[in-house]
Amino acid sequence: MSSIDALITTIAKLPGLGPRSAQRITLKLLREETKLLHPLIEALSAVKDDVTACEMCDNLDVTSPCTICASDKRDDATICIVEEVSDLWAIERGGMYKGRFHVLGGTLSAIDGRGPDALGIPKLLSRAGDERVTEVILATNNTLEGQTTAHYLAEALDACNVTLTRLAQGIPVGGELDYLDEGTLGAALMSRTAI
Amino acid sequence: MSSIDALITTIAKLPGLGPRSAQRITLKLLREETKLLHPLIEALSAVKDDVTACEMCDNLDVTSPCTICASDKRDDATICIVEEVSDLWAIERGGMYKGRFHVLGGTLSAIDGRGPDALGIPKLLSRAGDERVTEVILATNNTLEGQTTAHYLAEALDACNVTLTRLAQGIPVGGELDYLDEGTLGAALMSRTAI
Repeated sequence: MSSIDALITTIAKLPGLGPRSAQRITLKLLREETKLLHPLIEALSAVKDDVTACEMCDNLDVTSPCTICASDKRDDATICIVEEVSDLWAIERGGMYKGRFHVLGGTLSAIDGRGPDALGIPKLLSRAGDERVTEVILATNNTLEGQTTAHYLAEALDACNVTLTRLAQGIPVGGELDYLDEGTLGAALMSRTAI
Repeated sequence: MSSIDALITTIAKLPGLGPRSAQRITLKLLREETKLLHPLIEALSAVKDDVTACEMCDNLDVTSPCTICASDKRDDATICIVEEVSDLWAIERGGMYKGRFHVLGGTLSAIDGRGPDALGIPKLLSRAGDERVTEVILATNNTLEGQTTAHYLAEALDACNVTLTRLAQGIPVGGELDYLDEGTLGAALMSRTAI
């Protein structure tokens, strides 16, 4: 196998890519060596040794504690629990949330052998026990696994002196009623708010 | 900008990818360092210094002449002219063609300043002048630019003692008539063959 084929095969393993898109990307990289290939190698090599899981919240960053945990501009009173780093990034994109995070790294799963320890829940409980923390937001996904995990977390956090909240359920901004599933529409109707 | 953000930005520049898919790929790379990140850096570094344009046909390969030009199992009698290396790869995937190639690297374009020299046409003419070559296949894309270029090539190759052919036009294998455009259907009807 030539080095070009090896590169195509490696790129094709990345999420969302297949053999065709890997070929297209490879060709572009080869055609624009200085503009794309070299910067990509540099960017990959830079994260290779730097990135680490934050000792506080399990976020991925080049420092531990991560930028969010280390920042003195964030609100210590709130911890937002998310399943994955990608969920943390999604919330950070919005720029509305100013508190801290805890990244579970998945959901509780007997089949995959992920218990409370694997999700860093003991660490979370000790953080939530801190007297500065007044609210914990359970921002796991709105799926069966996510909600089961949220339920477990709610019970585990019951002993801590914090308010437990979860993200509001309802129609997405810009969403058209006609295209929404019954579950979302039902939840939005149940949680209707006064104007 | 942290090294993670830099990597996301670099990946987002690759064809077919945007900020979201770049984030997903970055996260996967960070989560599976030894399985994905390290092999990717190795594969990219391997092609970085190795890959070169073939001096004969302008194909991209780790050697020049490329594997196809250097192979003694390929038929010297036929040269297939394609626009891009990706077209060559597409034909090679099929495994039906056993001749040589010439990669133009684009189409003739007055606006982009691509004339016959940029497409390696003088080199092509000297190859087509070789007495072993009996057929030249004009396999440019079936677009306005591709066909204009094919037209120019047909005139330029007229002086050489070769048969000029082009790919058959018709319905794709597995194609349903109902979903085909009128142009394709018309061409298939015009070029109908006896059973």
